[in-house]
Amino acid sequence: MTSRRPTDALPADALTYEQAGVNYDLIDPLKVAAQRAAAATATNLAPHGFTELTASRGESAYVVDVGPFYLASIVECLGSKALVADEMKALTGRSHYAGIAQDTIAMAVNDLITVGATPLVVQAYWAAGGSDWFGDAERAQALVAGWKAACDTCGVAWGGGETPALAGIVEAGRIDLAASCTGIVNPKTRLSTGDQLAAGDAIVLLASSGIHANGLSLARKLVERLPQGYLTEIAPGLSYGQALLAPTVLYSPVTEALFKAGITPHYCANVTGHGWRKLMRHPAELTYRFDRVPAVPPVLAFIQQRARLDDHEAYGTLNMGAGFALYVAAADAERTVEVARSLGIEAMVAGRVEAGPKRVVIEPLNVSFGADELQLR
Amino acid sequence: MTSRRPTDALPADALTYEQAGVNYDLIDPLKVAAQRAAAATATNLAPHGFTELTASRGESAYVVDVGPFYLASIVECLGSKALVADEMKALTGRSHYAGIAQDTIAMAVNDLITVGATPLVVQAYWAAGGSDWFGDAERAQALVAGWKAACDTCGVAWGGGETPALAGIVEAGRIDLAASCTGIVNPKTRLSTGDQLAAGDAIVLLASSGIHANGLSLARKLVERLPQGYLTEIAPGLSYGQALLAPTVLYSPVTEALFKAGITPHYCANVTGHGWRKLMRHPAELTYRFDRVPAVPPVLAFIQQRARLDDHEAYGTLNMGAGFALYVAAADAERTVEVARSLGIEAMVAGRVEAGPKRVVIEPLNVSFGADELQLR
Repeated sequence: MTSRRPTDALPADALTYEQAGVNYDLIDPLKVAAQRAAAATATNLAPHGFTELTASRGESAYVVDVGPFYLASIVECLGSKALVADEMKALTGRSHYAGIAQDTIAMAVNDLITVGATPLVVQAYWAAGGSDWFGDAERAQALVAGWKAACDTCGVAWGGGETPALAGIVEAGRIDLAASCTGIVNPKTRLSTGDQLAAGDAIVLLASSGIHANGLSLARKLVERLPQGYLTEIAPGLSYGQALLAPTVLYSPVTEALFKAGITPHYCANVTGHGWRKLMRHPAELTYRFDRVPAVPPVLAFIQQRARLDDHEAYGTLNMGAGFALYVAAADAERTVEVARSLGIEAMVAGRVEAGPKRVVIEPLNVSFGADELQLR
Repeated sequence: MTSRRPTDALPADALTYEQAGVNYDLIDPLKVAAQRAAAATATNLAPHGFTELTASRGESAYVVDVGPFYLASIVECLGSKALVADEMKALTGRSHYAGIAQDTIAMAVNDLITVGATPLVVQAYWAAGGSDWFGDAERAQALVAGWKAACDTCGVAWGGGETPALAGIVEAGRIDLAASCTGIVNPKTRLSTGDQLAAGDAIVLLASSGIHANGLSLARKLVERLPQGYLTEIAPGLSYGQALLAPTVLYSPVTEALFKAGITPHYCANVTGHGWRKLMRHPAELTYRFDRVPAVPPVLAFIQQRARLDDHEAYGTLNMGAGFALYVAAADAERTVEVARSLGIEAMVAGRVEAGPKRVVIEPLNVSFGADELQLR
């Protein structure tokens, strides 16, 4: 079992994420500079009497100690999934923007809850390529209805937002969707930035509904290889485009229910870009060993096959059926699964945390990812 | 002195904001639907034991009562000002993205403080048209440096953010900039959503640095009428483009210093889109009468003259030198001015709140705006 760069030794016609158009070599220097500058602003909190949780730097949400509880906040972008909705609208006449709204909120909420926060307020950022985007009443109403429904599912208030028309910045006919989310970690013992993470913990994986909103550049690129494009049937009556548009699962009902059940995860990982490599997001030197893998949603199995990705590349890029990971005390593992299932979200105790070098080991697939394969900080 | 729609009776060649490309008739139905749906989500806070401040709906930031203090949050878009920076870069070779960063943070922070909140955390939303946007190291570093400097000025921690490359959504070579901001109103008596606003209050106007980040569509459209375009001199050695790019003033140091000085504004208005019409943003039936107006920044005087806008149109669209309004007890007015000046921000006691129909009356200009000229809720 070897650890290797995801693009080594793939078939010549394999379609990797890097080939799908995002060049991290260009973005990363800026990201590093921004992370350093951002870290240096932590001292600005001192005059207010507050401090940042330095452990939250590099995690999915930023956390500040404001006294009686921790404050968590985040802004997240949908990415390019709306382009698939636009294509499917042209092909089928049906608007998928209710689901797109849920995807956008999921990007923010599912990240915010990783630190143990209860999401409280979501703000909408809907930047259209021109006023006329909003003139399609069916699409606009679907976006509004889906946004509200997702807020209701997550128990958050929709505080407001921005609906700018940005001709010249956003492309005509397109919309740039993002959400910000603010929450609190209350009581403070709910904090799950990983201080408690340790060998012996169980890893519970919550099922994804499909691709969620990560890997869409790859999924869109793959369409060029499909003679029937988005209308390619991947299962009886299910088109590739429709399957891609399955809305991202909202996981905050699970984390809230766990709290009510007396279970505090030691750590959480939202499985987004970098797929299962995200499961070693925490900086600790620990091995994450999986002896089971969840069922792969048909759309992800289809992408893996048609893009000719081996398991190392597929699991290193896509969620492959695992949308969210909860690292809990071994004694809490089965009950964690039950809590998720009681909310209609499939779950399994899939692995465990072990002493050892930092890596993710997926035994049934003979795949592992080493620490050098995830550079987030 | 009559109240009228801004576009009535202007010269035939006048260039109004509506003509500059944003059609609110298309956006407004969506906005209304979104506002209604958002308002209906307030009940989601009850299971958490919290309540929204309903008075904050329709204000510039959303406020939730979380017990020991109020939580305020917002997301704000820069708008199209970055397009001016891009044009000026092409003409002069100089990057203005440090200032653009300040503008973006100002959009969020200056709104957040209107409710009496201390801004604590800013998140960056930088969505580029492709990875290559970030490859221009000078521009990227200017954006980072300006963002950090603005955070330092406002005493906020830069929590993190998103730097997606959104080819197909954001135009190639462009960037969609936004900021979210979270803060707290602490103590709760700092809340300035207008409960205390009353006849007899003084209105202190804080000086703007220029156009700030509202009215740029109009300013950009005007360039088409200028033979020398952005390089047109509007004052000796000062080009139109450079003047437009003066960064927005950050007003949170003033509101924080006022608190330390024992002054709690009864209400605040960030003068953005709709210019001085925003000064009657509060729903109360009150008259806002001004007997003085601040000096008009050269770039705004230039726009008014070249776009052939009368005072009603100009003051109803642009800030005309007033970037932020503080409605304070009359006894606090002069001290409020002193506090602002001590921070290097020019200020004046310009008007007062009176019993009477809801309107803004600018006596020196013989201009007034009626309640029907501002529809925000």
